[in-house]
Amino acid sequence: MGAAIDHPFHILRAGHAELWVTDLAAARRFYVDILGFIVTEESETQLFLRGVEERVHHSLVLTKAPYPAVAHLAFRVAEREDLDRLARFYESIGCSAMWLDAGAEPGQGEALRVQDPFGFPLEFYAEMAPAESYLQKYHLHRGAGVRRMDHFNCFVPTLESCQALWREHLGFGLTEYVETDDPPRRLKAVWLQRKGNVHDLALMEGAGPRLHHLGFWMDDMPSIIRTCDILGGAEMHTHIERGPGRHGISNAFFLYLRDPDGHRIELYTSDYLTVDPDLAPIRWSATDPRRQTLWGHPTPESWWREGSAVIDWGAGSTVPVRGVTDEGAARWIK
Amino acid sequence: MGAAIDHPFHILRAGHAELWVTDLAAARRFYVDILGFIVTEESETQLFLRGVEERVHHSLVLTKAPYPAVAHLAFRVAEREDLDRLARFYESIGCSAMWLDAGAEPGQGEALRVQDPFGFPLEFYAEMAPAESYLQKYHLHRGAGVRRMDHFNCFVPTLESCQALWREHLGFGLTEYVETDDPPRRLKAVWLQRKGNVHDLALMEGAGPRLHHLGFWMDDMPSIIRTCDILGGAEMHTHIERGPGRHGISNAFFLYLRDPDGHRIELYTSDYLTVDPDLAPIRWSATDPRRQTLWGHPTPESWWREGSAVIDWGAGSTVPVRGVTDEGAARWIK
Amino acid sequence: MGAAIDHPFHILRAGHAELWVTDLAAARRFYVDILGFIVTEESETQLFLRGVEERVHHSLVLTKAPYPAVAHLAFRVAEREDLDRLARFYESIGCSAMWLDAGAEPGQGEALRVQDPFGFPLEFYAEMAPAESYLQKYHLHRGAGVRRMDHFNCFVPTLESCQALWREHLGFGLTEYVETDDPPRRLKAVWLQRKGNVHDLALMEGAGPRLHHLGFWMDDMPSIIRTCDILGGAEMHTHIERGPGRHGISNAFFLYLRDPDGHRIELYTSDYLTVDPDLAPIRWSATDPRRQTLWGHPTPESWWREGSAVIDWGAGSTVPVRGVTDEGAARWIK
Amino acid sequence: MGAAIDHPFHILRAGHAELWVTDLAAARRFYVDILGFIVTEESETQLFLRGVEERVHHSLVLTKAPYPAVAHLAFRVAEREDLDRLARFYESIGCSAMWLDAGAEPGQGEALRVQDPFGFPLEFYAEMAPAESYLQKYHLHRGAGVRRMDHFNCFVPTLESCQALWREHLGFGLTEYVETDDPPRRLKAVWLQRKGNVHDLALMEGAGPRLHHLGFWMDDMPSIIRTCDILGGAEMHTHIERGPGRHGISNAFFLYLRDPDGHRIELYTSDYLTVDPDLAPIRWSATDPRRQTLWGHPTPESWWREGSAVIDWGAGSTVPVRGVTDEGAARWIK
Repeated sequence: MGAAIDHPFHILRAGHAELWVTDLAAARRFYVDILGFIVTEESETQLFLRGVEERVHHSLVLTKAPYPAVAHLAFRVAEREDLDRLARFYESIGCSAMWLDAGAEPGQGEALRVQDPFGFPLEFYAEMAPAESYLQKYHLHRGAGVRRMDHFNCFVPTLESCQALWREHLGFGLTEYVETDDPPRRLKAVWLQRKGNVHDLALMEGAGPRLHHLGFWMDDMPSIIRTCDILGGAEMHTHIERGPGRHGISNAFFLYLRDPDGHRIELYTSDYLTVDPDLAPIRWSATDPRRQTLWGHPTPESWWREGSAVIDWGAGSTVPVRGVTDEGAARWIK
Repeated sequence: MGAAIDHPFHILRAGHAELWVTDLAAARRFYVDILGFIVTEESETQLFLRGVEERVHHSLVLTKAPYPAVAHLAFRVAEREDLDRLARFYESIGCSAMWLDAGAEPGQGEALRVQDPFGFPLEFYAEMAPAESYLQKYHLHRGAGVRRMDHFNCFVPTLESCQALWREHLGFGLTEYVETDDPPRRLKAVWLQRKGNVHDLALMEGAGPRLHHLGFWMDDMPSIIRTCDILGGAEMHTHIERGPGRHGISNAFFLYLRDPDGHRIELYTSDYLTVDPDLAPIRWSATDPRRQTLWGHPTPESWWREGSAVIDWGAGSTVPVRGVTDEGAARWIK
Repeated sequence: MGAAIDHPFHILRAGHAELWVTDLAAARRFYVDILGFIVTEESETQLFLRGVEERVHHSLVLTKAPYPAVAHLAFRVAEREDLDRLARFYESIGCSAMWLDAGAEPGQGEALRVQDPFGFPLEFYAEMAPAESYLQKYHLHRGAGVRRMDHFNCFVPTLESCQALWREHLGFGLTEYVETDDPPRRLKAVWLQRKGNVHDLALMEGAGPRLHHLGFWMDDMPSIIRTCDILGGAEMHTHIERGPGRHGISNAFFLYLRDPDGHRIELYTSDYLTVDPDLAPIRWSATDPRRQTLWGHPTPESWWREGSAVIDWGAGSTVPVRGVTDEGAARWIK
Repeated sequence: MGAAIDHPFHILRAGHAELWVTDLAAARRFYVDILGFIVTEESETQLFLRGVEERVHHSLVLTKAPYPAVAHLAFRVAEREDLDRLARFYESIGCSAMWLDAGAEPGQGEALRVQDPFGFPLEFYAEMAPAESYLQKYHLHRGAGVRRMDHFNCFVPTLESCQALWREHLGFGLTEYVETDDPPRRLKAVWLQRKGNVHDLALMEGAGPRLHHLGFWMDDMPSIIRTCDILGGAEMHTHIERGPGRHGISNAFFLYLRDPDGHRIELYTSDYLTVDPDLAPIRWSATDPRRQTLWGHPTPESWWREGSAVIDWGAGSTVPVRGVTDEGAARWIK
């Protein structure tokens, strides 16, 4: 979508997320032993993890906390100056910028945090300490051998406004969307990208702000099937919520898991290249079952309804979840 | 189970089946274009099909008929004399033998047909005309590229008696079984084999006699996943009833399809070798969900309830289906 | 590598190539029947092909000609104005720009052609007519089911100068490189990218200008193995030159084929994301055999030595191939 | 080949092998850490291993010894009485029977050992202690996750005589063979089976008696490719001698490895069912390169020439290796 050249900030990609988990040992077993994340650094209260392909300090932070939540969703930007420009932008729309010193989050350079107008705790950063690649250390891969962070998928009650912010002001390109058929057509979900595949961020209309899932890239379909067998073998099959299957939207071969705290993880592969700016977004009717899966399997209710609450930086508690309502004049942009 | 050496007949394997279908053209599209069966011979009313690995005239016969049914389930025996021995055995238990001349079923030598005590229309044969192998003609494989016949799975209301006949009198070995936990324990399903993998014949307690499914061998897991994508691409996903998944029982990687007439087909791979006669049968509790799938997916109701009626040779109509009842003195063997 | 923001032109990716072939029917069998390209348009003398994922008119043009050659290698740019800027740049270094009207190459908008300082016939374009996606028409995929254009790999005798042009002036990012160990270290090969994976263009020191291969993206490893079986089944195994295997460089799972005219095609998958601008290029010693393959297989001599000559726009014949010599003062840039 | 019913002994399958290795720790790393064998029992001098599918004490014994060799190749028989019958048969052809008490080889019942007329140290056994299945403990699989013993492949200088013994007297069925084209045609290799797939024993004309390789069954093609990556990752790629590839003979997807002592191991999958007694053996011309591989790769010289010497029970040293000569009157059978 070539948006890179039209916007003052150059967001590169979905970078990492921090999840609050109630039992760090249980989370370690799930993410390290089963999903195969590499541990870059750990303490009594935190785990900094990366996929086998990743050469940076972390793409996932797990923090011991009294209840499960999403502490932040972070995007990598091209250069330090993007942070200033983003700070000015968010302040211009009424969101105060918070600055994190380099190293305040281990491995990370100076960073900007904002609670965005929809309540999401976002972080932007331009630097992350390098780490050794395990990509070709195949003999050390464990479990799923997760490759790398791919995307965030969020529930938002005011989808129309929210997606407009990301597309019009933050330079995200639209690759696929779901809308109702009857006029006035209403957006139900969007897939937005920066890095050149189907998405860095998906937004689905729903009670929010909440995280629907973190999507991690897998090498191929057989490694996803293997993950099912490993979970089955370990009698951890209840962590499988949905799939394996083939999405109509994005064409991804997918598997949805729930971690020990209920956070949803997607193992994801086989989408497509989207770097051409004139690639027409693909429309799906909200009544077309093929958008969910080409194979026709029903989607479990939990997948539609459940998500992870997000943290309000200021309040130090979760952002209250609002239901979907008619947006009316509520469109965020003045 | 080395039963070969203990019994007067040498049944080699599940050989082929004849299905009645109401729309031969629709069936051809499903079995030939999508599942990739090779057509050995066809007429206005019949299709003789084989898998890409098979070097015999047919492993599946589709016959145009006014309603769907199973016309016969056929087992290959080692030699012509086995047919006489089987005829005598079935007559000794009150089932009259019918003889088919060589060629009466195209490609097949002389054959024995019996309606067994449980109502199943069985055929036994010792000869089948050779046909060209397509195994290494990979450029000509289509769709699923089904490899070969693997097994039959049937519903029978009097499971205890029925499985005793196959094991005690026909030399089948038990590899796995499901039974209730509370005494008196009651068998719910058995997997019986002759050819050295998990089964040639599975019997499940249920209203019958009916065919639950025909199981065909696939090369590997990726070819089963590919079949899902092909069905999805062709918008034929409603033919997918269950799976892909991993059975606890048999360890098979499976996919269940319904053909245009509702006959159920399993694409099956990845079970194990069972030629050691002292290999202990694996017991599954009827309440253990892992027997159905290691991955925890629910089994659709249709899979539990629906099956194909079988033909009564004499009456020329389907055998009435009886529900499961207490077998009491009804045990077939005097 | 964030180069987008530092350069006056925004090249998006390797876009398409035109190959001269001597037997269009033989080429059609290879590319369409075996590799599974989709035919967008064809005439007596040309075939316009796209991969199953591509939603543009073509990523490969095959043109009937008296001898095999590479007629052009084309890069997609972000917008029409990039073409003017590129024309000015190439003229500034002494390469005359040739303009192609929209439609002069079927399906393509106005385009710029230059013979670059190293003799390569390059094309730049900002528009390509849309075409229907076959990505989810899995039932219509044939053979390898090639997904999309990924990269060009070229031999050039003056590697140091050539790579400097692409990196310093055209905004390509370096992801991996091979150099000698003894000082003065000498570059032997580079992998350069724009679209965010390992490469859009690889340059290897060697007699040139010549194309080493066109790299096309495949869905996954099993689809590459399947291609081997299909070629083997069709008794076209002599088209397999090297692989399947795992490159150390790029981590790609690869297969190299030779088309009926000897043009080399790589089927390629499983590399990694490179959008972070500070991702350190990976250095390989020219004596490390793991750079070529992690599995240790010898590389056939033909792979090291043979390539396709390229066309000189002006002369209407192939550009003479020069051997590798000491570049000395010949470095192109003043 | 229905041989079961025509012979006085009922050999079930290739059962296990004992290899002498010079460095038990190095062998453990290769077989357990990389190939994924399960350790049933171990001592200072021996390792008893089984594949993840196997429910018996061992299919591979590694014994610390001063030089590498094959201590025995063992076949499982159906019942204890087969051992007596086999002892009488071998004595009738001049080979003395040695009896092993139950437990003399850990986990094994009473066993018969003979040095066969061609010098091979054979063992026959009817009982092996059960062991826990790891088939569905997918979370505990390591490395290749080898499934089970499949076959032995041996070099023998007097192929014609040797194969006649196995076929005519021991009841093995011929599935495929290689012979020269010019009359008088001369056998070059045979594939002989008991368990219903392509082979339990292959015999190739060559200097012998020697073991060419032990063949182990793998779940599928992706698990073989994964093994290549694991070996590559561990920088143990020199253990890969040949493949991955697709044999014409047997249709197997194969990979040949050399263990730290040079013993050759084949990882093998995707052959076909052979239980029909009238399945015609497949003939390959000794000049047809497709017999070796459908993909056209050259076979390394080492694969043709190298093998493991076998132990002479009586002498306690290796059996001298004789080259291929005209068999003349040497045919073993009177």
